[in-house]
Amino acid sequence: MDYSKLFSEDTASFFRSPVRDIFKKVDLNSILSFAGGYPSAETFPLDQFRDTMCEVIGKYGGKAFQYGATQGVTELREVLSARYGVPMDRIQITSSSQQGIDVCTRILADPGDVILTSNPSYLGALQSFRSYRAEVVGVEHEDDPELFRQSYEKAIRSVISRGKTVKFLYMIPDFQNPSGETLSLQEREILVELAGRYGFLIVEDSPYRELRYSGTPVPTIMSLAPDLVLHLGSFSKIFAPGFRLGWIFGHPDVLDKIYVCKQSLDLCPPVFDQYVAAEFMGSGRLDKNLVKSIALYRGKRDLMLSLLEEYMPEGVTWTSPEGGLFLFLTMPEKFDSVAFYDTALDRGVAYVAGSFFRTDGGGRNTMRLNFSFMAPERIREGIILLSSLLKNALA
Amino acid sequence: MDYSKLFSEDTASFFRSPVRDIFKKVDLNSILSFAGGYPSAETFPLDQFRDTMCEVIGKYGGKAFQYGATQGVTELREVLSARYGVPMDRIQITSSSQQGIDVCTRILADPGDVILTSNPSYLGALQSFRSYRAEVVGVEHEDDPELFRQSYEKAIRSVISRGKTVKFLYMIPDFQNPSGETLSLQEREILVELAGRYGFLIVEDSPYRELRYSGTPVPTIMSLAPDLVLHLGSFSKIFAPGFRLGWIFGHPDVLDKIYVCKQSLDLCPPVFDQYVAAEFMGSGRLDKNLVKSIALYRGKRDLMLSLLEEYMPEGVTWTSPEGGLFLFLTMPEKFDSVAFYDTALDRGVAYVAGSFFRTDGGGRNTMRLNFSFMAPERIREGIILLSSLLKNALA
Repeated sequence: MDYSKLFSEDTASFFRSPVRDIFKKVDLNSILSFAGGYPSAETFPLDQFRDTMCEVIGKYGGKAFQYGATQGVTELREVLSARYGVPMDRIQITSSSQQGIDVCTRILADPGDVILTSNPSYLGALQSFRSYRAEVVGVEHEDDPELFRQSYEKAIRSVISRGKTVKFLYMIPDFQNPSGETLSLQEREILVELAGRYGFLIVEDSPYRELRYSGTPVPTIMSLAPDLVLHLGSFSKIFAPGFRLGWIFGHPDVLDKIYVCKQSLDLCPPVFDQYVAAEFMGSGRLDKNLVKSIALYRGKRDLMLSLLEEYMPEGVTWTSPEGGLFLFLTMPEKFDSVAFYDTALDRGVAYVAGSFFRTDGGGRNTMRLNFSFMAPERIREGIILLSSLLKNALA
Repeated sequence: MDYSKLFSEDTASFFRSPVRDIFKKVDLNSILSFAGGYPSAETFPLDQFRDTMCEVIGKYGGKAFQYGATQGVTELREVLSARYGVPMDRIQITSSSQQGIDVCTRILADPGDVILTSNPSYLGALQSFRSYRAEVVGVEHEDDPELFRQSYEKAIRSVISRGKTVKFLYMIPDFQNPSGETLSLQEREILVELAGRYGFLIVEDSPYRELRYSGTPVPTIMSLAPDLVLHLGSFSKIFAPGFRLGWIFGHPDVLDKIYVCKQSLDLCPPVFDQYVAAEFMGSGRLDKNLVKSIALYRGKRDLMLSLLEEYMPEGVTWTSPEGGLFLFLTMPEKFDSVAFYDTALDRGVAYVAGSFFRTDGGGRNTMRLNFSFMAPERIREGIILLSSLLKNALA
């Protein structure tokens, strides 16, 4: 049978994640991987997970294994409400924050609508945006606040002049994926002002916010304008990604659309996992564990920065993130990190080419490195190897 | 902010599940509920669940809490492959079989494309189909095989004559939701023949197949034509719905589209839950538990049928399902089960009006009753109450 004539038009815009496809082929533990955005398995307190699960079974019995409410179980929404100071009617639990991105796109973007984002931006978000045939417009980061405003406003006006609509701006303001960079308060205020003036929403993707290793927290964009923002949270980096749980904070009118959409997407988030998350967070275990994770990751970030300083050849620069899981390398213009990838993998070290995070295929001289996943001695081994391969390639 | 101008066109076709909305308002345990498709909590062996979880933590450690492969963890796919005799490259794990329905629709149906189904059909499927603005064409069931063929063929030809395309036929061949009825082998063969002749796929939704209480199993539609069928399975009725796990069996070319779609939908199914399912199924516990569930549900079905026989007023008829969770009541033409619903709920008994399962808003004199969820004494109480309310309403 020729299936191709049966596939929907959306499928022509699907594109594969090079990151996920790497993991399909290569056993992560057999290589030195700076590629994924994986937390360290060290941050999973297995005994505590087991204890929490036993407590959940004792406390909730069969209810923990039954169908649950589409908006998420009350107990988890209550814990999130208390922790983040968000009213209950503004909380929707999602089956991962990737689903949060996807469902926001689904309820907002028609084919041809514009989604604005920073350039580079999160690959999984670009996949989702394009899968609905939205047009993704990437804006380069400018350090000067006035230039920052101008570059976003110019992009918005250009969209309007083409008769198109900006439906939302997608940003990861804290320790961005892939750059590791954080937006200043002033930059956040500018974005809010533009959203208000031009009438679009801001999807604030915030999976790394609580993993801060230095510097001072900046207010969330949501806190500046709760009604203009859909704020996406995730349990993946502060608890464990294997539970596939996240949340959306937003205006009840928007959440209602998401709620009805989620009924047909998958009825409800995983129920047992939600009770475990509620119990782990509500009992204070999550916060205690987070303190340890932060110390662990701070050490890895510092190690990574000092190794890069020590081993990287001249002409290579990198970002110094105050938190999160990634830093971003820039090589001289002539270098091609896509072409170089097979060589690196052959020698046993993996990264993600920076151009995969861009809306325009540019940035081929950049790459994203993760510092959370591997043990320190493997980070050392990996950076020494990658540095020497780059030295040869750049010679 | 006026959000309405930001919402996508799809959202105008979203409709709320009356079933899910009931559960948002009413505590299930406070009423006599024949409404949901909930398994009995008695079928959740909590001690075994706990033991299985501890085994998974011991066996897989941190891996059970990490990100997993988009197609599902290998161990679970292996167990399914062995159990159902389906090759590994034809298995995609989904985050619930509702997601299976949704993702099949996403990759196949453009707005205006036709999805054929029986009338009545599963409400959650109708929600999903309409959310993509597909046109749903419902076909009435005919008991005579020749009339059965003619009614489907007539519907298909009518679609073609309007210049439209049938993308797939959606069927629940075993113990249908809501009717409880099962398609004969001959009927399945007719559907396969029509799919082959007219070039569309069959989405065979099979969540209840293993819950057979009497009669002889009929071959799956998939077994008759593996390349024409996307077969959806679910752990919700044979294990526990709270894990939100299902699967799709199908041709690798179609599964590849689903795989890429799932990357942007939610990256991967819940990982810990998948290991628990693999362990519970692989160790034989699932089959042992299933024997008990079947005995329990058989008793409830038989009780329900004898109570209906004893208490229902004249003019009310019902189906006698050989398995599954539901039977379907038909009242005299003048009766309106939508209007009657509030009266019933006021008196403490809930059902789902049959018209919600239809593509044409008809069938207002029908209702779906679930017999799996409540304990026998509550089933008795509920049927006696419902019968007396109906007697008054029909008098």
